[in-house]
Amino acid sequence: MTEHRGSGPRATLGIDIGGTKVFGVALDPDGRILAEARLATPNGERASLLDPERRGDQVADAVADLVRQLCSGLEPPVALGIGAPGMVDRHGVLCFAPNLPGASGVDVQGLVSGRLGGMAIVVENDANCAALAELTFGALQGAGEAAMITLGTGIGAGLVVGGQVHLGSNGFAGEVGHMIVDPAGPPCPCGRRGCWERFASGAGLGRLAREAAQAGRLPRVVAAVGGDPESVHGEDITTAARHGDPGALGVLEELGWWVALGLANVVAVVDPERIVLGGGLAEAGELLLGPTRRAFAELVEGPGARPPVALAAATLGERAGAVGAALAARWAVEGPR
Amino acid sequence: MTEHRGSGPRATLGIDIGGTKVFGVALDPDGRILAEARLATPNGERASLLDPERRGDQVADAVADLVRQLCSGLEPPVALGIGAPGMVDRHGVLCFAPNLPGASGVDVQGLVSGRLGGMAIVVENDANCAALAELTFGALQGAGEAAMITLGTGIGAGLVVGGQVHLGSNGFAGEVGHMIVDPAGPPCPCGRRGCWERFASGAGLGRLAREAAQAGRLPRVVAAVGGDPESVHGEDITTAARHGDPGALGVLEELGWWVALGLANVVAVVDPERIVLGGGLAEAGELLLGPTRRAFAELVEGPGARPPVALAAATLGERAGAVGAALAARWAVEGPR
Repeated sequence: MTEHRGSGPRATLGIDIGGTKVFGVALDPDGRILAEARLATPNGERASLLDPERRGDQVADAVADLVRQLCSGLEPPVALGIGAPGMVDRHGVLCFAPNLPGASGVDVQGLVSGRLGGMAIVVENDANCAALAELTFGALQGAGEAAMITLGTGIGAGLVVGGQVHLGSNGFAGEVGHMIVDPAGPPCPCGRRGCWERFASGAGLGRLAREAAQAGRLPRVVAAVGGDPESVHGEDITTAARHGDPGALGVLEELGWWVALGLANVVAVVDPERIVLGGGLAEAGELLLGPTRRAFAELVEGPGARPPVALAAATLGERAGAVGAALAARWAVEGPR
Repeated sequence: MTEHRGSGPRATLGIDIGGTKVFGVALDPDGRILAEARLATPNGERASLLDPERRGDQVADAVADLVRQLCSGLEPPVALGIGAPGMVDRHGVLCFAPNLPGASGVDVQGLVSGRLGGMAIVVENDANCAALAELTFGALQGAGEAAMITLGTGIGAGLVVGGQVHLGSNGFAGEVGHMIVDPAGPPCPCGRRGCWERFASGAGLGRLAREAAQAGRLPRVVAAVGGDPESVHGEDITTAARHGDPGALGVLEELGWWVALGLANVVAVVDPERIVLGGGLAEAGELLLGPTRRAFAELVEGPGARPPVALAAATLGERAGAVGAALAARWAVEGPR
């Protein structure tokens, strides 16, 4: 990496604002990562969560911080791309962000611009960025009709239509985590009930895990966390499942069913040929993909009457969002290659 | 109309195979309807429902019959378009048709071709045809990102992306009636449970109506049908609602809520600027559109954070599918205008 620093063609920066961390990369024109850096997402004191202005400043400060870290020793970058979770409009405003408390309505583009005067800045939905990265370098290469689904704190999607990321009329396409799949389901931070991400995201896994623990189906996991079923977290499940714990494998089976349900709904609407799963939960790999594939084969409409939908893991891992944000920024400035 | 018969430029035929009727039009190059005709959908004796070959013949015979009626007195038509309910692939095979019993797997294009040798034939999903018609002559004119939703025996959609009907990788896009919105919901002819069309289609209205009747909320309607709550049908509700029956209006309020739920899901996935409602249920007009709009304003993600989605009635009524099928056929032969 270091041989590129300070020499060669100018980099583009990409920053992915997640529910737990803000992660950034500097990308060279060939897509190589020259530098990367991360910060914990400023979680905001209680006061700031009620004050979008302060909340916006916190987020923009974190982004500007990362930019300075990433730029150290590099030529001034061409542009900065930012991926943000939720409904990002075409002016770079994060209109609605149920998984980034207090950040709904934050003018990300404006606030970051104010801190990095002169730099070209593009703000996109984080899952759209991830889809762009997978389309360019990863598991969606060559796909015409496809979907990148990010299973993290919430669930997002980048839809690919005609080989390009589909933004929709406002830039809000792919908000699949907020399809309602059970109107009597648990309340969602978005204000409604039973959204898909209540069941199939990191938060959903945590809930399924605690339910299984309370029901006595995870004796070994509960013992390992000190005996309190309420202390079981999603990560405990994936760890235990890797060691073959039957209760934990059962929870992932249940999670896979819910993941498959939403995928079947996405397929009903847009008919992709390929679906790629990314985000933190996808790191469970086949432990989650296996149950998801099995359930999907039953939950998709007319399973025997359609060509199979390819269901695979994303290949760029946690970097997809940041890499895609950098690509979006470069293309906004230079045009797509 | 008749002045066009037998003279002038050659017509294109469009036929819409519905759950209850097969309806056809002959369209002149300017989109004027030169002739129209209809037949009851052959509902198939029990035996034929189990025999896709016989079922296919029944459907193809009905289409060929209508073609002969439509052609009487016209120059030989340019081409024939057929709209069919369910998953129609790019070879004109009706791969899966939960609302046309026994017709899954029928090679519509092949069977109709065999009866009308030499005529160019195009087969598309019926809702995609309706969307094309509304896009060309109706309520979707000028729309870039939009959805045409047909609320009939089942629920279909034609999605508009970049100003064109989006077919998806197999031609199966827009199967929105089979989004699962309640995994514990009633069984669906597709083989799963709780599909949107169980709640928000003609079948859904019938169910809501009978539930309301059983619960004693429709005394006047039940009296009007002879006293048996089981005899209340969807049409009885819309008729009673037109006369201001509070119980019937309540049922349409409930139906509107379910319609809005699915629309909110469609909006979450593809972010249309405009949604047009067609199909038999849409004939209830504002009696259904009003409650749907009110519920949609609460059920869409981030209602205060997005530009409103325009929600309107389709303008081509029951002819949309057939007119769109004719347009699709003309374009397949001559290229879009």
